[in-house]
Amino acid sequence: MCPHVPDQSNPNGEEMVPINTSSQPHIPPPVPAGTNGTQPNGHQSNGVDTNHHSAPPKVKSHKDMYGRASDFLSNTSNWKIIESTLREGEQFANAFFTLETKIKIAQMLDEFGVEYIELTSPAASPESRAHCEAICKLGLKRTKILTHIRCHMDDARLAVETGVDGVDVVIGTSSFLRDHSHGKDMTWITKTAIEVIEFVKSKGIEIRFSSEDSFRSELVDLLSIYRTVDKIGVNRVGVADTVGCADSRQVYDLVRTLRGVVSCDIETHFHNDTGCAIANAYAALEAGATHVDTSVLGIGERNGITPLGGLIARMMVADPEYVKSKYNLPMLREIENLVAEAVEISVPFNNYITGFCAFTHKAGIHAKAILANPSTYEILNPADFGMTRYVSIGHRLTGWNAVKSRVEQLNLNMTDEQIKDATAKIKELADVRTQSMEDVDMILRIYHTGIHSGDLKVGQSAVLDKLLQKHMPSREGSPTRDSPNKKVKVDV
Amino acid sequence: MCPHVPDQSNPNGEEMVPINTSSQPHIPPPVPAGTNGTQPNGHQSNGVDTNHHSAPPKVKSHKDMYGRASDFLSNTSNWKIIESTLREGEQFANAFFTLETKIKIAQMLDEFGVEYIELTSPAASPESRAHCEAICKLGLKRTKILTHIRCHMDDARLAVETGVDGVDVVIGTSSFLRDHSHGKDMTWITKTAIEVIEFVKSKGIEIRFSSEDSFRSELVDLLSIYRTVDKIGVNRVGVADTVGCADSRQVYDLVRTLRGVVSCDIETHFHNDTGCAIANAYAALEAGATHVDTSVLGIGERNGITPLGGLIARMMVADPEYVKSKYNLPMLREIENLVAEAVEISVPFNNYITGFCAFTHKAGIHAKAILANPSTYEILNPADFGMTRYVSIGHRLTGWNAVKSRVEQLNLNMTDEQIKDATAKIKELADVRTQSMEDVDMILRIYHTGIHSGDLKVGQSAVLDKLLQKHMPSREGSPTRDSPNKKVKVDV
Repeated sequence: MCPHVPDQSNPNGEEMVPINTSSQPHIPPPVPAGTNGTQPNGHQSNGVDTNHHSAPPKVKSHKDMYGRASDFLSNTSNWKIIESTLREGEQFANAFFTLETKIKIAQMLDEFGVEYIELTSPAASPESRAHCEAICKLGLKRTKILTHIRCHMDDARLAVETGVDGVDVVIGTSSFLRDHSHGKDMTWITKTAIEVIEFVKSKGIEIRFSSEDSFRSELVDLLSIYRTVDKIGVNRVGVADTVGCADSRQVYDLVRTLRGVVSCDIETHFHNDTGCAIANAYAALEAGATHVDTSVLGIGERNGITPLGGLIARMMVADPEYVKSKYNLPMLREIENLVAEAVEISVPFNNYITGFCAFTHKAGIHAKAILANPSTYEILNPADFGMTRYVSIGHRLTGWNAVKSRVEQLNLNMTDEQIKDATAKIKELADVRTQSMEDVDMILRIYHTGIHSGDLKVGQSAVLDKLLQKHMPSREGSPTRDSPNKKVKVDV
Repeated sequence: MCPHVPDQSNPNGEEMVPINTSSQPHIPPPVPAGTNGTQPNGHQSNGVDTNHHSAPPKVKSHKDMYGRASDFLSNTSNWKIIESTLREGEQFANAFFTLETKIKIAQMLDEFGVEYIELTSPAASPESRAHCEAICKLGLKRTKILTHIRCHMDDARLAVETGVDGVDVVIGTSSFLRDHSHGKDMTWITKTAIEVIEFVKSKGIEIRFSSEDSFRSELVDLLSIYRTVDKIGVNRVGVADTVGCADSRQVYDLVRTLRGVVSCDIETHFHNDTGCAIANAYAALEAGATHVDTSVLGIGERNGITPLGGLIARMMVADPEYVKSKYNLPMLREIENLVAEAVEISVPFNNYITGFCAFTHKAGIHAKAILANPSTYEILNPADFGMTRYVSIGHRLTGWNAVKSRVEQLNLNMTDEQIKDATAKIKELADVRTQSMEDVDMILRIYHTGIHSGDLKVGQSAVLDKLLQKHMPSREGSPTRDSPNKKVKVDV
C-alpha cells in the first residue's frame, strides 16, 4: 500500500528546525571514575576533546572502557562482511531484482566497502546465471564476488564458469532437512562435499562449506564434517541459523568449540525470526568467527537476516575506529533507500541508524542531558553516518533545557526563570494537543514581548493565556494530529 | 507520509490464494538422532503427531532438545512482562496518546495478559497525572499498574496518590548522567533512594529501584546500592541499558553477578540502538532476571526498546507451553495495529511474527521442505498467533513442489514429469518478470489442456510458447511490477 520510500528524516512531513547551528564538535564524555584517565570515545571522529584537553587523547572504544577484559578469541576488531542482498535478499517475498538494479546494488556495496557480495546460484534460473556473469564482469574495485550453491556437482560446474571469485556451498545437516529436504545421510553429505570442494579448489577460487540449520544439527556430525573439509583446505566453514532459533550463548558456545576444531575462517549466517540476528553475529565474532553474512535492511526468507546497518551499529560500539576505517558509513542510508525502493518497502520507523527516530530525543530529562553532552543518551554519533540529532520540544514531556536552546536560537532575551515559566505553559498546552514548532515559537515570542513590554510577569499564567488568545486566535480550532512531533534539530 | 497502518498480510494489495485447504495439523519434526525419543516441539499445540505416532508424546521445547544442559539460574520458563508502551512508548517521537487511546491500550494489554503496565510519571504534566489516575480506576482484570518516577520525594508523593499498584523509581548512576543530568554523587543517590523507597513502602504498594545507564556505571557502585535497597525491602531492582550499548555476554555477566547480591526480583530494560534488545532480555532471563520491560512494536526514545512481539517470539523458542499458557497470542496483531495507528507508523515489513513476510517462504528448496514439514524452515508456528503461512510461487526461484501444490488445488490431472516441465516454463517466464498468480494458473491450465488434448508433449517448450501466446495474448504488454509477490497460502 505504501510502496514508496519516505524521507526517513521527516516521516510526517513536519519541518525540522535547527536549534543550534554552531559547529561545536561532538563532546566526548568525561573520564569516568576508576578508569585510566584516557577518553572514552564511542563517538568522536578525531579523538580531540576541544573543551577539556589541549592534546588529543588516545582513542579508546566503549568496549575498552566498559567491557570485559580483552578476550584472545574475539574478532570484534577484525571481521569481514559477506553481503548477501543479491542472494538471501533475493529470497525476500517482495524481491525481484532486474540486472540493472543488481548492478547498482553491487556497485554501491563495493563503494561502501563490503569485502564480499554473494549472488544467487546460477543454477536457479538462466537469468540468475546471466546476472551472475554480468556482475563478475563489472570489475568491482574492492569487493569479491561469491555465488551460493547447493552441495552438488552440477551446480558447482555452473558456478565456476561464471567468473566468480569464490563459491559458497551449503547443505542441510539437521535431521529436519535430511529427512524432508534432500533426504541424504551424513556419509553421503561428506562424500559429496569432498568432491565439490576439491573441484572448486582445482579452479583456483575460494570455497566455503556451510551446514544449514546448524543449531538443530547434531554437534558431533557438524564438527566431524567441518574438520574433514578444513583438512582438505576450504577457505571458510559456515555456521547458519537457518530458522532463527539460536540464542547468543548457544552461538558463542558452538563457534568457540568450532574455533578449536578448524583452522580456516568461520562464516556465520543468522536469521532474525526471534530477534537475535545481530546479537548472535556479535557473539559469533566474540567467539572467534571471522565473517558475518548480512543483507541491506536484513531482507531475506521470512523476516530476514542480520541487517547490514544493524551490524554496523553493533560493531561501532566495539571498535568505532575499525569500522570507520573500513566502511563508507554515510553511504548506508543511500544503499538502504535503493534497496527499499527496489523491493517496494518502507525503511522501518525504528531502523538502526537511519530510522527517522534513531537520533530523536524526547523526554525532558533526556533532552537536557543530550544538550549538555550527547554521549549521555547516545552510544552512536549521528554525524558518523551523515545523520542529524533531533530534540523533540512541543510535547507534554518536554523540559525547559530544550526550550532554552530554542530561545537562544530565536535570539530572545529571557532569563532561566522566564524560560521555565514559558515551558510550563508549553507543557500545559501540549497536554491538550502536541504543539507545532510554529506554536512553540509564537508562545515564546509572545511571552518575550509581554515580559519586555511590562504586560506580563513571571507566574501570571492567566495574563499569558489572554495574550496568547489575542495573538494566536486561530489556535483553538486547529487540527491536533497533523504534526505530532515537531522536532528541533540540535548541533551539539 | 504513510501515516496509516496497512493490512500487514497483504502489503501490496496482491491476492493470497489458499493452496491446500485441508486441515492437516502442523507436523512436528521427527526424532533427531541421538535424542531421547520424545518429540521436539517448538510448534505443535496439541503434542500429537498424527502422521508418525499413535499416542501423544510428551511436549518438549526446542531448548530441551537442542539447548544446553538445564541451568539452575535460568528463568526462561518463569518470567513476567512490564509493558511500558504507556511510559517508554510515550517517549517515542511520534507518540501523543489521548486518554481514550491509553485506556484502549491498557485494556488490550490486560486482555493479552501482561503482568504489569507502566505509565508516565504523574509529575510529567497535569494531564499525565490525570491519565494515571483514570487508568488506575479502570479495574483491569489481571494487569497491575505501575508508574515510573525520578528518585525524588516530590515525584513519589504524587505517584502514591494516583492509585497505582507500584512505583518504579529510576536514577542515573553512570558518570555521564551523574555529571550531565542530575549532578549528584553516589552518597546522595543512596540517601535519596532510601528515603523514597521507605516512603513508598509505607503506603503498602510495590517499589522498584533501578539504575539508569547501568552498563556504563561502575560495577561496585551499582552492586553497593542494589544491596542497600534490597536490604530495605524493594520488590525489584532494575538494570537498564539506557543507551543500547550492552551486548548479551555483558548482560549475562552483570545479571548473574547481581543475582548473587540481591534476593529480590530483577527487572531489565534494554534499548535497541545496536540491535540487541531482544537477545539481551533473553540473556538476562537466563542469568536469573525475572521481569522484562517491553513496549508494543518497541516504541520508545530513539529507536526504542525490546518489542513485546519480538520478546514473545524469542520466548516461544525456549518454552512455548509457558508462553501460550500466559498470554493471548492471537491478540498480538490487534494490539500492534492499535498502537501503530495511534502513533502514525506502519508496522515494519520485517516485524516479528506479524510482519507481512514473517511466514512467507520463497526459495524453491525452502518451499519443498515446508510443504513436507513446516518445522524444517520455521521455528514458530504461525497458527499459534492466528497467522498464516504463505509460499511464494510465481518467481524465478520457485520449485516444482510448490507448483505441484497449486496443481492439486486447481484439481488438474498432471504427472510429476509434467509438473516439472510446466515449472521450467514458469521459471523461464519469471526470469523476465515475476508472474502473477493468475498468470501461473493460466500457464498450468493451458499446459494441462494441451497435454490432454494431445497438442502438447513434455519437453515441447516451443509448442507451449505458441499455446501461451494464443491463449494469453495480453501477457506481453502487461506491467511487470504491479504484483511482485503473488503468494500462495498453504495450510499444512
